[in-house]
Amino acid sequence: MNNPSRVITLTTDFGTSDAYVGVMKGVILGINPNVQLVDITHAVPPQDIQEAAFLIHAAYRYFPKGTIHVIVVDPGVGSDRRAIVCRTDHAYFVCPDNGILSYLLQEIEDREEQPAYGVAIENRAYHLPEVSNTFHGRDIFAPVAAHLSLGVRLDDIGPPVENLVRFPLPLLTISDDKLIGEIIKIDSFGNAITNISETTLVRMKNVSVGYEISVASTRIKRINRTYAESQIGEPLAIIGSSGLLEISVNGGSAERVLNIKQGDTVTIQRFG
Amino acid sequence: MNNPSRVITLTTDFGTSDAYVGVMKGVILGINPNVQLVDITHAVPPQDIQEAAFLIHAAYRYFPKGTIHVIVVDPGVGSDRRAIVCRTDHAYFVCPDNGILSYLLQEIEDREEQPAYGVAIENRAYHLPEVSNTFHGRDIFAPVAAHLSLGVRLDDIGPPVENLVRFPLPLLTISDDKLIGEIIKIDSFGNAITNISETTLVRMKNVSVGYEISVASTRIKRINRTYAESQIGEPLAIIGSSGLLEISVNGGSAERVLNIKQGDTVTIQRFG
Amino acid sequence: MNNPSRVITLTTDFGTSDAYVGVMKGVILGINPNVQLVDITHAVPPQDIQEAAFLIHAAYRYFPKGTIHVIVVDPGVGSDRRAIVCRTDHAYFVCPDNGILSYLLQEIEDREEQPAYGVAIENRAYHLPEVSNTFHGRDIFAPVAAHLSLGVRLDDIGPPVENLVRFPLPLLTISDDKLIGEIIKIDSFGNAITNISETTLVRMKNVSVGYEISVASTRIKRINRTYAESQIGEPLAIIGSSGLLEISVNGGSAERVLNIKQGDTVTIQRFG
Repeated sequence: MNNPSRVITLTTDFGTSDAYVGVMKGVILGINPNVQLVDITHAVPPQDIQEAAFLIHAAYRYFPKGTIHVIVVDPGVGSDRRAIVCRTDHAYFVCPDNGILSYLLQEIEDREEQPAYGVAIENRAYHLPEVSNTFHGRDIFAPVAAHLSLGVRLDDIGPPVENLVRFPLPLLTISDDKLIGEIIKIDSFGNAITNISETTLVRMKNVSVGYEISVASTRIKRINRTYAESQIGEPLAIIGSSGLLEISVNGGSAERVLNIKQGDTVTIQRFG
Repeated sequence: MNNPSRVITLTTDFGTSDAYVGVMKGVILGINPNVQLVDITHAVPPQDIQEAAFLIHAAYRYFPKGTIHVIVVDPGVGSDRRAIVCRTDHAYFVCPDNGILSYLLQEIEDREEQPAYGVAIENRAYHLPEVSNTFHGRDIFAPVAAHLSLGVRLDDIGPPVENLVRFPLPLLTISDDKLIGEIIKIDSFGNAITNISETTLVRMKNVSVGYEISVASTRIKRINRTYAESQIGEPLAIIGSSGLLEISVNGGSAERVLNIKQGDTVTIQRFG
Repeated sequence: MNNPSRVITLTTDFGTSDAYVGVMKGVILGINPNVQLVDITHAVPPQDIQEAAFLIHAAYRYFPKGTIHVIVVDPGVGSDRRAIVCRTDHAYFVCPDNGILSYLLQEIEDREEQPAYGVAIENRAYHLPEVSNTFHGRDIFAPVAAHLSLGVRLDDIGPPVENLVRFPLPLLTISDDKLIGEIIKIDSFGNAITNISETTLVRMKNVSVGYEISVASTRIKRINRTYAESQIGEPLAIIGSSGLLEISVNGGSAERVLNIKQGDTVTIQRFG
């Protein structure tokens, strides 16, 4: 329930070789010249809503309270998909209602935080005067974010919406002696980030017996505290900076060395 | 005739893997620490003046009035090509006089707006103390832009110049039943942007008969209002966010799916 | 001995397709919302300390005095390598103590400037509350830089350190009639930057006899003042914007045309 800050972040699949991102910033600065603009990334693969959902979830808690996050990965632009502003205890999100907030809405429920409050962007006073059917990042999302940063109230932007679109999150199966998750993201170092959190692992570790982590043809028998505990070139498992289990290679790319990819199954088998 | 704003944009072919762009920003902040710096793009293909001309023209009207645009795609650096500051009704441009402003100067004429006013950058007081022969972005364009943002007058920068360099724009041929243009830009989604504007098309559409759009081996028989009107994977024509006809594939890359490229002819044939 | 400015630059090997860089900026803005953030580059090849050392050395003198440079290329993250803040006459550097400052520390000695003063980052009051073993950019370097920009004193951050880690710089061999250096960096235009400075060359040039520059199978007999003095496509030597001899091809990529790479020997042979 914080007031919007003057920090606005941008996450898109626009790349940085066209003028699209610059144009969105121009629109924002024309409305509020005193914002702090931060790029999260513009290299989301074209129309990859799940990747955008992962990235904004991984990033938003590190920004000041009230930060306004604009996320434009929008295959349905021009169709009747809703455009929304969503407020959580921590931040504001301005985006199409297409599942982009799936990870963070789930986390809010898991942590039993204050539920998110969403409104549909309907008040045309906060759009650009002319709205295209192909670039709502420029014509709707950027100007709405800029007006938010000036203090416009959510209820002035549009009516409340229920049932924000959410896609099913990657499955995590937990049984007595086995935990099955998957690789949800390969980062640019080639680290494979899984959907197995430290919290989930703590339960297995308390059992205090042996276990084996399997992914593709690789078997790992312990979880490192640091990369340096393994030899250069050696595969390892570690709790990464998002609190999730990662499969890495010290000084190399796990993606290439271990031939693994997003979606691959990761199994932790307890034994002994 | 606006005063310069404190927004400075950068458009270059420097890439983002070297320190060149950062260095230009350092120079600017050393002169005016209170600017708002915005990257338009640094991925202009090396020395591709036409691409830079297209991008700055597509972007500049979305920035606040008085924005200062620095554009450095400069194959003639160190030669006797002029360096200029150009002022229009909307913005300032700081760049080599090598055709980079061709699209926007043409548009100003077409719209019968106030002609651009240009000066040659000659007053060395606004250069860095030492000027290299290879990096005028750092030594001349960045410091001049920063001084402009502090309120330095154009006539203090150098004498007026006439006949700014302009390259011939891609041809558009219009006859009674046929319109022939070309693809002037492929964006990072693979959309093919043509030089056929909505304004030009309106005339044909008023004729209210059938027409066919041809590019390479693809034939399209209507202009979509939204991407969603076509099936995923289907080629389509649409008025894009710059007001120009674009050839796209819903959910895919027209460049790859239709095997088309910059420079390809696009024909609209009226029939019936 | 300047006070820290509110300009903070970032140089990393994180790429721009993940959220890591955005997260660092979020942390900084949460501590000091009034900084000016500048990216130098995030495209340092993974864990390439030498490249990072070259880039920060090439860039830092063009930023305002007191600028805070955060450099995170950190293969030893989580090990016992030190984290440091280093102050020079010109700037502050916040980074792992792994050789990243080698070029600039050498230059300070060569120019007989005030020696750098370094402290180990030990005071946890300036870390994030929870410090991971894999992402000190977020948990240590970013918050320390932000606190510095607010005026925190170096001695409050940690105890002085001696003997900052330095790697051996590429060799330059000078004899009576021969100078042997190497290519230390290929930039994104394909220009090959050598470790032969203009200062070193001046001595040879004073001899006023003929000389020949050799690299791979290319021989060049003079040093250009501008690119334009050579034909398009022709190999040339020129003093680049860092004051170092560069091998270029006018209008092309020396790397591709001359088939040269980082580490290749460059010889200047005097004769006659």
